[in-house]
Amino acid sequence: MNFQDKLTEKTKEIEDVLRSWLPEETGFAKRLAEAMNYSMTAGGKRLRPMLMQETYRMFGGEGEEIGPFMAAMEMIHTHSLIHDDLPAIDNDDYRRGRLTTHRVYGEAMGVLSGDALLNYAYEVMLRAFSMTDRTQRVIRAMEIMAEKTGIHGMLGGQSVDVENDGKPLEKDMLDYIYENKTSALIEAAMMTGAVLGGADQEQLNTIEQAAGNIGLAFQIQDDILDVTSTSEELGKPVHSDEKNHKVTYVTLVGMERAAREVQELSQKALRLLDGLEKQNDFLYDLIQMLVHRRK
Amino acid sequence: MNFQDKLTEKTKEIEDVLRSWLPEETGFAKRLAEAMNYSMTAGGKRLRPMLMQETYRMFGGEGEEIGPFMAAMEMIHTHSLIHDDLPAIDNDDYRRGRLTTHRVYGEAMGVLSGDALLNYAYEVMLRAFSMTDRTQRVIRAMEIMAEKTGIHGMLGGQSVDVENDGKPLEKDMLDYIYENKTSALIEAAMMTGAVLGGADQEQLNTIEQAAGNIGLAFQIQDDILDVTSTSEELGKPVHSDEKNHKVTYVTLVGMERAAREVQELSQKALRLLDGLEKQNDFLYDLIQMLVHRRK
Repeated sequence: MNFQDKLTEKTKEIEDVLRSWLPEETGFAKRLAEAMNYSMTAGGKRLRPMLMQETYRMFGGEGEEIGPFMAAMEMIHTHSLIHDDLPAIDNDDYRRGRLTTHRVYGEAMGVLSGDALLNYAYEVMLRAFSMTDRTQRVIRAMEIMAEKTGIHGMLGGQSVDVENDGKPLEKDMLDYIYENKTSALIEAAMMTGAVLGGADQEQLNTIEQAAGNIGLAFQIQDDILDVTSTSEELGKPVHSDEKNHKVTYVTLVGMERAAREVQELSQKALRLLDGLEKQNDFLYDLIQMLVHRRK
Repeated sequence: MNFQDKLTEKTKEIEDVLRSWLPEETGFAKRLAEAMNYSMTAGGKRLRPMLMQETYRMFGGEGEEIGPFMAAMEMIHTHSLIHDDLPAIDNDDYRRGRLTTHRVYGEAMGVLSGDALLNYAYEVMLRAFSMTDRTQRVIRAMEIMAEKTGIHGMLGGQSVDVENDGKPLEKDMLDYIYENKTSALIEAAMMTGAVLGGADQEQLNTIEQAAGNIGLAFQIQDDILDVTSTSEELGKPVHSDEKNHKVTYVTLVGMERAAREVQELSQKALRLLDGLEKQNDFLYDLIQMLVHRRK
């Protein structure tokens, strides 16, 4: 099977896992569940759960407890998208080619469904304790997810991004924003997969570094695509960075150097993974695809 | 020592515990930490962590692991207040006598600091695993917190409240809203304390029922005070329910029956606790005070 067919198959597998962990649309709070599920079933690359699962498999993981973590990962990511799209933050009407959650369900429900997804992620992760005897691994995986999501991770990066919106940015601050807003969840995904799969602390550090590089390359590629792509290809408006006078890697170091950085960072990540002497060809191809994607 | 002095002393104790678990205001995300801490240090009755601690003690709990759970409880509660106050939901300018978080830090930071507090609650709870050998109790306590916070608890109730804003409400829906929006966290507080203190499943069910009654009585008293109190006493605007044409217990069943319900519910709660044959006089006094408070 070629990479594209494998990717399609694995994405379908992940969609099934995600769907099995969604809240039921029933009872008085039916509409809240609908809003949560609307955004969770909007498609997307499912990159984070896929990286998690592939890293888990690379370390020999074969259990069921990865399922709730994959679902939780996507819930946390989706929570951040819903809240980012709110009028108070980016004020976006479209995401993944459909109306954003608050445009369909109203702003109050946008806030609450984002909250509910973040919280549900933890509810779902806690179920993993009953699916494996390896309690310490589940605790460690939850610690990683929590830290990388919060003030010392994604939400920290997001807050600095929002605070400096439209202001000139130094490179070190832009690095901080990218490392946290984007890389932190990629790190969480791969580290969680590694820990649950049985990685030791040294291997975990390597995975964290590799994932950090992948996340950064991914975000820079995002900046590049905002300039070079069309709205149809991306399923969301392009040139939004320019319109919003947003400082990005491309505006800060230029297109050429940005493209070179993507190349270098992804090579670095692959070399780090190589050093682990584990086998997962699909993971390598996936990383290549992600950082060099055209949409 | 009389009850009021004990209450003052215990509140001070709890303030110290809470403060010890707040994020440091440092680094690039300093302002996010400031916004989180602004709302966490705004005072308030600290009712939920206090109920948690007293229930823990009633079951003989003496460890340190209750600390992170108390802090997490207040973080979750504060998260909900920050988001409730947002323009998209209640659009309130004042809370506990001070400007609301989004009025001081901006709306985007209001969204993000609420998110960050909810997530930090889990980061903090996870620390409890290193503070006790009773891993299963910590897992069970976290499960309770997660369930009572989310779509099957507080956030579910909040979503139904928001959806039906200004609409006529049937009694069963109002019950659902109160049981979830308000009671769920009171239940979480007392159940978590009970579980960590060593309660068995039957005792836990009793605590859940008692806490449900206390929460309901507390919320009905809130409705009563909105009619009878002054803005100075409450530290927030009064008559807001009437102004917003909000259906409450008072508008639905009248002041007299509402007051009787508070009385009956609190008596029921105290009888349930009595049946456990444990001793905690302060907890009994606290419950009496809460449901009969004048502000």
